[in-house]
Amino acid sequence: MQFKFSSLAEALKPSEIRELLKYVSVPGLISFGGGMPHPSSFPVDDIANITAALLKEKGKQLLQYGSTPGYEELRIQLVNMLKKTENISANKDLIALTPGSQSALYSLSKILSSPGDEVICEAPTYLGTISAFRANGTVMRGIPMDENGIKTEMLEDKIKSMVSSGKPPKFIYLIPTFQNPSGISLSLDRRKHVLELVSKYQIPVIEDNPYAELRYSGKRIASLKSMDTEGLVIYLGTFSKILSPGLRLGFTFGPEPVISKMNLLKQATNLATNTLAEAIAAEYLKRGLMDKNMPKVISMYREKRDTMLNSLQENFGDEASWSHPDGGMFLWLSLNGKINTTTMLKRALENKIAYVSGSAFYPEKAETNNMRLNFTYSDNNQIVDGIGRLASVAKEELSVVA
Amino acid sequence: MQFKFSSLAEALKPSEIRELLKYVSVPGLISFGGGMPHPSSFPVDDIANITAALLKEKGKQLLQYGSTPGYEELRIQLVNMLKKTENISANKDLIALTPGSQSALYSLSKILSSPGDEVICEAPTYLGTISAFRANGTVMRGIPMDENGIKTEMLEDKIKSMVSSGKPPKFIYLIPTFQNPSGISLSLDRRKHVLELVSKYQIPVIEDNPYAELRYSGKRIASLKSMDTEGLVIYLGTFSKILSPGLRLGFTFGPEPVISKMNLLKQATNLATNTLAEAIAAEYLKRGLMDKNMPKVISMYREKRDTMLNSLQENFGDEASWSHPDGGMFLWLSLNGKINTTTMLKRALENKIAYVSGSAFYPEKAETNNMRLNFTYSDNNQIVDGIGRLASVAKEELSVVA
Repeated sequence: MQFKFSSLAEALKPSEIRELLKYVSVPGLISFGGGMPHPSSFPVDDIANITAALLKEKGKQLLQYGSTPGYEELRIQLVNMLKKTENISANKDLIALTPGSQSALYSLSKILSSPGDEVICEAPTYLGTISAFRANGTVMRGIPMDENGIKTEMLEDKIKSMVSSGKPPKFIYLIPTFQNPSGISLSLDRRKHVLELVSKYQIPVIEDNPYAELRYSGKRIASLKSMDTEGLVIYLGTFSKILSPGLRLGFTFGPEPVISKMNLLKQATNLATNTLAEAIAAEYLKRGLMDKNMPKVISMYREKRDTMLNSLQENFGDEASWSHPDGGMFLWLSLNGKINTTTMLKRALENKIAYVSGSAFYPEKAETNNMRLNFTYSDNNQIVDGIGRLASVAKEELSVVA
Repeated sequence: MQFKFSSLAEALKPSEIRELLKYVSVPGLISFGGGMPHPSSFPVDDIANITAALLKEKGKQLLQYGSTPGYEELRIQLVNMLKKTENISANKDLIALTPGSQSALYSLSKILSSPGDEVICEAPTYLGTISAFRANGTVMRGIPMDENGIKTEMLEDKIKSMVSSGKPPKFIYLIPTFQNPSGISLSLDRRKHVLELVSKYQIPVIEDNPYAELRYSGKRIASLKSMDTEGLVIYLGTFSKILSPGLRLGFTFGPEPVISKMNLLKQATNLATNTLAEAIAAEYLKRGLMDKNMPKVISMYREKRDTMLNSLQENFGDEASWSHPDGGMFLWLSLNGKINTTTMLKRALENKIAYVSGSAFYPEKAETNNMRLNFTYSDNNQIVDGIGRLASVAKEELSVVA
């Protein structure tokens, strides 16, 4: 049988990062590729205790279908958490729970845009978002960044030109804090500029904020949602970086019409989220375990970040440049312009070092000499060894291409 | 802010069944509405033991991101289960795990059809499938059923007319065993006829088989997939009826190109399924607990089915007709043709009895005097009381409309 697929399905391509996971089990490979938390960050004992107590107390309820909006106690706990961490005044009825925030990204592009519609994002941007939006035929237009995040003057020009051509962007997608892949945070001034722009042109903005709790230095910058007085910001969070990605739990807080449409789409795509996972997350927050656990995680990740930054300085010196993130999971390394990091990946894997080449993160024309490095998954000695290997690989590559 | 939604999102409508869940908490309400297992069917202690052991043994692995194809041990266990229960020779690499089989229904219509494309199904059919397909703009053409399932002569005529108009159906969607909503099973002869037709016209067929393990009488009928020699059948199963719907775990076994596309779409929509839930299901099968648990569930549900059938006979006699399912969770009740069950629902809810009106299950022109009754969720005394109330409500309604 020769299967014929829809045009959207024909356009689906394997993501480089997912394909890389195949190599993760190669003995001796050091991977800076995936975006995985360190296994020791998972509060296994807490989760075991919580799960045992929950199943004992209300197992029959937690193994049953949940309602589409999801476990109410979790939405209540999220309202408290958002107030405390981001000074966001949420409402439990305007929080949509999804099986991972990946699912929210997919849903939002599906409900806010039709195939061929254009939206604006940072360039580079999260490759999972590129996959999610592409699966709906949403076309992404990238705006360059500098050390203060997306260049909002260029953003303004782009919006103006799209508006004057009669096709304003359907929405703007941003990761303002510890951006994936760059590690860069959008400055407060530019955040305010973004809000002015979306208010002036009445464009919804998706604020994807998975990493905010992972701050190792510097001061918290107000989230877009906390400054949103007009209901233009759709805020995305996740338990993947503060509890466990295996549980697949993301949450969206946004304006009523958007949350209502998301829940209708959830009926069609999922019916409900995993009730037990929702209850585990609720109890984790209720018991104050996030406040207990995160300082340990932050301390561990800070050391990893510093180890990677020091190793880069020692091994690359002036031969490359890289971002200096105050938090999150990634930094962005730019090699000599003659090196194509996609081409170089084969040599890297042969030397048992993995990364994701920068081109994977560009929705349009890609720069080719960059890569994303994850510093949370590897142990400190692996980071030192891995950056050393990477420098050797880059040197060899340059000697061939130069 | 005035949000503008995509045309697919504009078409999303609340499902009657989900809306009904709001009433489930009304004190004294007896609900034959939802498709929920009885809470006492959940092996809470087994799941608690399994979860504790798994978290102790490999908690860090189970809380991490899983790979897109999903937990390998679960796919291995499913291969064994499919052989044993359905005589299907599966392959672990051709099994896709999804967050509920609802997600597989959505994915399959997305990859196999584009908005406006037509597919064929039974009429009536599962309303969750109608939601899933509509969310992708897939147009469903329903073929009537009798006590032996979909009328395959009419199916053949429909295929011929679509083929001759140059637009063959993109696929056929069937629930051959204990169909939702009718409870009817497709006879073996007709199953063979379906396979002849899809072979002749080279049309993929989705066999949705969530209820097969819930057989209370009669002999197992071979699944389409077990007789599929050409790789035309895409087989869907779920843990919602054999373990727990709260875990949100469905599985699809199908031809390589289809499973490969489903996994690519899963990258874009979910990245991965819940690792812990996958591991719980794998261990449940591995320990042989399904074989231990299902006979108890079947015995309980058989009694509920018989109670409902007896109550219908006592209360309605010749005033109505209904299906006599050998298994599954539902039966189909047809009242006097003057009664519109959608109109009558208000009266029913006032009398604290809930059902889903038949019109919700028709993808096209609906019959209006039917309803789906679930017999698994309520206790036996509730079934007796509920059918009594329903008969009174129907009598009152008829006296008003006649």
